[in-house]
Amino acid sequence: MIKSVLVDFNCEKPCGETIELFSNSAAFVDLGLTLQTWNVKEIAGTVLYTGSDGVSLLIQWYPGAAGKLFATVSGPARVEQIASLLKKELEANKATSTVFTPPLKRGLEWNPYIQNCDGTVVENDFQELLFHQKSPFQDVKIFRSNNFGSYLLLDDDPNLADSDLAYTKAICGSETFDFSGKNVFILGGGDGGIINYLRNLSPTKPKYIEMIDIDEMVMNACAKHMRATCGDSLDQFKGENYEIFAEDCVPRLTRYGEEGKKFDFIISDLTAIPVDASDSKENADQWAFMKLILNKCMLLLTDEGIYTTQGHAFCSQHGIEEYRTILDSLNVHVSSEAVSVPSYHEKWVFYTLRKKSE
Amino acid sequence: MIKSVLVDFNCEKPCGETIELFSNSAAFVDLGLTLQTWNVKEIAGTVLYTGSDGVSLLIQWYPGAAGKLFATVSGPARVEQIASLLKKELEANKATSTVFTPPLKRGLEWNPYIQNCDGTVVENDFQELLFHQKSPFQDVKIFRSNNFGSYLLLDDDPNLADSDLAYTKAICGSETFDFSGKNVFILGGGDGGIINYLRNLSPTKPKYIEMIDIDEMVMNACAKHMRATCGDSLDQFKGENYEIFAEDCVPRLTRYGEEGKKFDFIISDLTAIPVDASDSKENADQWAFMKLILNKCMLLLTDEGIYTTQGHAFCSQHGIEEYRTILDSLNVHVSSEAVSVPSYHEKWVFYTLRKKSE
Repeated sequence: MIKSVLVDFNCEKPCGETIELFSNSAAFVDLGLTLQTWNVKEIAGTVLYTGSDGVSLLIQWYPGAAGKLFATVSGPARVEQIASLLKKELEANKATSTVFTPPLKRGLEWNPYIQNCDGTVVENDFQELLFHQKSPFQDVKIFRSNNFGSYLLLDDDPNLADSDLAYTKAICGSETFDFSGKNVFILGGGDGGIINYLRNLSPTKPKYIEMIDIDEMVMNACAKHMRATCGDSLDQFKGENYEIFAEDCVPRLTRYGEEGKKFDFIISDLTAIPVDASDSKENADQWAFMKLILNKCMLLLTDEGIYTTQGHAFCSQHGIEEYRTILDSLNVHVSSEAVSVPSYHEKWVFYTLRKKSE
Repeated sequence: MIKSVLVDFNCEKPCGETIELFSNSAAFVDLGLTLQTWNVKEIAGTVLYTGSDGVSLLIQWYPGAAGKLFATVSGPARVEQIASLLKKELEANKATSTVFTPPLKRGLEWNPYIQNCDGTVVENDFQELLFHQKSPFQDVKIFRSNNFGSYLLLDDDPNLADSDLAYTKAICGSETFDFSGKNVFILGGGDGGIINYLRNLSPTKPKYIEMIDIDEMVMNACAKHMRATCGDSLDQFKGENYEIFAEDCVPRLTRYGEEGKKFDFIISDLTAIPVDASDSKENADQWAFMKLILNKCMLLLTDEGIYTTQGHAFCSQHGIEEYRTILDSLNVHVSSEAVSVPSYHEKWVFYTLRKKSE
């Protein structure tokens, strides 16, 4: 297994001087590394050593980052050992180690690295790729993870894992609603978590559930590979107390509006809200879609009706604030809650909307 | 901000040949990178380019990893751009990108990278170091995280964060016990999560809680910086229905045994079990300590008494199995549960022991 360790330092002395002392040390000589590049100036430097076993030690410093030294140790062997020795030697030269990563695995057959909404990086324990196909709408992947069970990614974006009952409970109101005898409409939710949770609520299960998701491939893949999440709820698209439609939700929302059809609960698990602050066309389109859905859904709610939805990561402040402004502009009571979703590695925001009595 | 991106490839052609075609491409010439090292053999290679803006591109391949190419792009600028272009160019040369990390931050003032028990790596969103001191027993750090609240590390090992009520509930039996009117003994638990949870259980709070943790510094730091976890429960070490002792638990366990003192519940939140398979002295000592605690505690339980404890990460199979063997050798009923703990980024195993009626 090829691995890399990143080790960074704050140096009291100029970086070039610190490195010179290091490279003269007996401990370093013992490493048996050969100098490949020695390109050292006061404000910038690139020094590369390699070993006959393939290990490499790249040391760099940059203009604008005075006194900071960045080392990358990579190879099939001795990676941690060299990084630790480097740390020990530089600390003897008045440098302080700041970042010291655990070994990062190289050359895996798929990419386990995912970026959270706040920019932090997580390596997932993907053991096996259970499903991978491109639907007309998106790239659909399901991995198997020891910690999170089956793990659905759509266009490489983590969607839901078997571990994430906290997500499903939160978007269904965190056990504060009584669904007994109610009509529920689920928008999206193709992983089947919500419909399966509601169908198995005891003794407060809804009278009837409709669900509409655009991507039949997602539902079929989840029915097969995410049974801990969806149970048998995606095996048939029509059952005693539910029906699932594999289609775009907008025409049906429009038609139901015209027909005057009403629901007690609408649970919207469509795409997360946009969170970057740009005024790109894509962003504008997504916000327009969000508003369209909200407006159409408000018409379908009974007077006592409740609409719940997800927003985005708790840290995605710009988008969260913009969405809240939109929600507050509707004639509804809004409450929100941030919940830790295990496979997301971060908190996610959920909303509950209730019509104001006129 | 200096960043690094790691990009790995599977190549159909030999790595040297793939790189040669890449380095002749017009797109690559446009990058304005200068060759620093070109050390290319069939089974191994090290190629280093640098840009005048400080960016570097290190490409390597190794004996024993035929057809696999490892690139590391680092610098203050253009890191993602160069990594993406490299991917595009190599894919045109019949290489397939496997791993492509998001940008890894370099030169932070503290290390946000933590290794999970299964070897995966997580970057935490530490915003501020709220507390850092060395006690006579351990290095005590509390960071502030947007996602997990205050976040306690002991000897750089994640202990508990404000987000982790799931841990506290699980070690207290996942809401399946009635603590009303009972005597509870907490071993460890210096973060105050367990005692605060039990003190505020309504309407089933215990009659009396004793808690014993060796490290007063941890308790004082948590009282100040982890109030979402411990509330006011660590402000005073003695209250109406509880008492906290800052001392080694073993002498007190021994004395209580001699006195014939009994508890309805013992919640052991001491150190996690050892998980490596080595027969080192340290490992043997830790297992001996675990057994000592278990044996002493069994004597202190009432006939209907319940003992709960944590084990280790769900993925730490060797240690988990060894611990289970120890538990099963006691004259008790054992049940276990694996729970997702948000700040751990992985599942953790908890145990419940009940005395067998003789």
